[in-house]
Amino acid sequence: MSVIVTATASVNIAVIKYWGKRDEELILPLNDSISATLDTNVMCARTSVCARPDIQKNEIYLNGIKNSFDNKRLQTCLKKIKAIATLQKTVDEEFLSWNVRICSENNFPTAAGLASSAAGYACLVTALAKLYKIQTDISQIARLGSGSACRSVFGGFVRWHAGVKCDGSDSTAAQIVQSTHWPEMRVLVLVVADKEKHTSSSIGMKKSSETSELLKYRVEHCVPRRVDEMINAIKKKDFPRFAELTMKDSNQFHAICLDSYPPFHYLTDVSYKIIDVVHKYNEMYRETKVAYTFDAGPNACLFLLEENVPEVLGVIKYVFPSSNTDYVRGLDVPEEEEHTFVQFPVQPMEENKLQYLIHTKVGDGPQIHYDGPHLLNELGQPLNVLKI
Amino acid sequence: MSVIVTATASVNIAVIKYWGKRDEELILPLNDSISATLDTNVMCARTSVCARPDIQKNEIYLNGIKNSFDNKRLQTCLKKIKAIATLQKTVDEEFLSWNVRICSENNFPTAAGLASSAAGYACLVTALAKLYKIQTDISQIARLGSGSACRSVFGGFVRWHAGVKCDGSDSTAAQIVQSTHWPEMRVLVLVVADKEKHTSSSIGMKKSSETSELLKYRVEHCVPRRVDEMINAIKKKDFPRFAELTMKDSNQFHAICLDSYPPFHYLTDVSYKIIDVVHKYNEMYRETKVAYTFDAGPNACLFLLEENVPEVLGVIKYVFPSSNTDYVRGLDVPEEEEHTFVQFPVQPMEENKLQYLIHTKVGDGPQIHYDGPHLLNELGQPLNVLKI
Repeated sequence: MSVIVTATASVNIAVIKYWGKRDEELILPLNDSISATLDTNVMCARTSVCARPDIQKNEIYLNGIKNSFDNKRLQTCLKKIKAIATLQKTVDEEFLSWNVRICSENNFPTAAGLASSAAGYACLVTALAKLYKIQTDISQIARLGSGSACRSVFGGFVRWHAGVKCDGSDSTAAQIVQSTHWPEMRVLVLVVADKEKHTSSSIGMKKSSETSELLKYRVEHCVPRRVDEMINAIKKKDFPRFAELTMKDSNQFHAICLDSYPPFHYLTDVSYKIIDVVHKYNEMYRETKVAYTFDAGPNACLFLLEENVPEVLGVIKYVFPSSNTDYVRGLDVPEEEEHTFVQFPVQPMEENKLQYLIHTKVGDGPQIHYDGPHLLNELGQPLNVLKI
Repeated sequence: MSVIVTATASVNIAVIKYWGKRDEELILPLNDSISATLDTNVMCARTSVCARPDIQKNEIYLNGIKNSFDNKRLQTCLKKIKAIATLQKTVDEEFLSWNVRICSENNFPTAAGLASSAAGYACLVTALAKLYKIQTDISQIARLGSGSACRSVFGGFVRWHAGVKCDGSDSTAAQIVQSTHWPEMRVLVLVVADKEKHTSSSIGMKKSSETSELLKYRVEHCVPRRVDEMINAIKKKDFPRFAELTMKDSNQFHAICLDSYPPFHYLTDVSYKIIDVVHKYNEMYRETKVAYTFDAGPNACLFLLEENVPEVLGVIKYVFPSSNTDYVRGLDVPEEEEHTFVQFPVQPMEENKLQYLIHTKVGDGPQIHYDGPHLLNELGQPLNVLKI
């Protein structure tokens, strides 16, 4: 009988940003980065894998559509895992000779610019490592799929060490603290309604590395200090410090994009409005209660403590009104606690500038689901294939 | 009979930006900057001054409205000029004891964010220096009125030396080349339709000086090299080099704004569209034919050579359509040469995202107008006073 291994993994949100590679091939970053891995119960990639003698060629299905396996990064990950399995003699040679079938789905829109590749590769590598029974630091393998995926193989707060070695063997991720260390931490993902085409992060990083003079200074002077301070803030659960560092580092990353040549930008007028709302909110309380961070797109991730979620949601609904009946998704917010804001010192935007919000928290990292649901049936055939 | 002195001066457009002060009081900048002074025939401030025994208190009229003279920077300029006149014995003591009346007008909207204070102070200081017959480097005095005004007291391309002395005596402007050196150079000012309130440049500079880590690096490493390269490019009339440096320095200045905390921004979605249009245009020709630069607001200044004006205007009209019958102002563009663009690889925006354009060129600096028109009559009384 065929073994089906199914895993889930989630996206991670960087609070100290990864931007720029020291090695394009091995995906080695210019600087350390730090992120929070989100709860797989709210947003996740789910991946089922199997290896069988009756599979003619390696196959991969993404969100119900058969994709080409002719993808260098994907092949590198599989090759690496099989090589370790060979070395560790964890499975027999016959099993190693079989082809694989991979079926992966995201429960959130891939196009939402929410670093779905990080969740996807973390999930894939977790599932394959289990299938081939290897014992190793899988963050290095996930890194070869998609740089920041290495941070999604752990839960809680995670640091990706840039490393210094040419072969990348010291460019690995490590957990700073588990999610249980700071259970009050919440995340609101604000998905901006956006039709613009943005520079891909790979291309953007390359441009910045080649042309931004400020990036050198960021990498050498700003990030090392910020990484230390951020780890301290997380360990001490110092929210204001954590929040300020998070916002400053997001801003600096976007400053680097603008300092690149030709410049590119991810923040839109709606993103700037979110930045304004967060600073106005914090100023109102004379305390840093919410932080924003933006990746290679206009969507914001807000970090805040559980106790402030109802009020902040009220502010967001006031400034970004929506006709969407399914506007707030994810974790429940007790209705009676929800504030209705009628006054806030920021002019509301017109309706539907935000598509929807996802309310979530920091999670435990990838999970293996022995009991399914699997995306492959007992015969290793994909379920949920879209008819096009 | 009373002497009326009337001067005109124009705004200047920085190609290496001034951002951040080393002394708030004396308005001493953190770094050198370079600009082009625009033609007074297209955009200018006009200022008439007189000193008379019958003026009870110093008076100033701006655009037809009596303003308070209780303005520290204004008083500093007047005091400084009178002190030099005393020292140089250029006028008699009686004349020095009389109060002044100042009347100033801009022929372009003050609110358009076009650094009207630079033109205003350069004009005022030029007129007062003439009235009191002093012989001195007036750029230092204009600097005390409004930092970048010191560059507007010269025509052509001008460098403001930051200087190193605490008293600011070496923080002066000097002409790099006259406007006749590069007579083909043209400027298009794109006035963006914008309702947003932006951080004033004084406040923005202060925030950046206090909080942006990247600004230090810019000041110490990026600007000194760029200043040398820019002077070279101007002297050699190397347009592509001039243009690239101009764009990079504008982008870096806006990157610094974003790296400040809390961050602030001047570029809007329309500004980013202009940036995109310029890069697409240059890519189309595989040659840098147009440069943009943005100051503390969303308006763009494009630098380009005369021969490219008709085509670039065509592109702008295509991407930024307007219902304004007076859309293109300033210098004439021969109608038969105007291109009508029907295809350009940038999606046009909806109508009226730009208010209007001003077509102008690099100019000769402040002028004294012995024959008027003056803004004060023979009795030293203001003309054109608005009835409110």
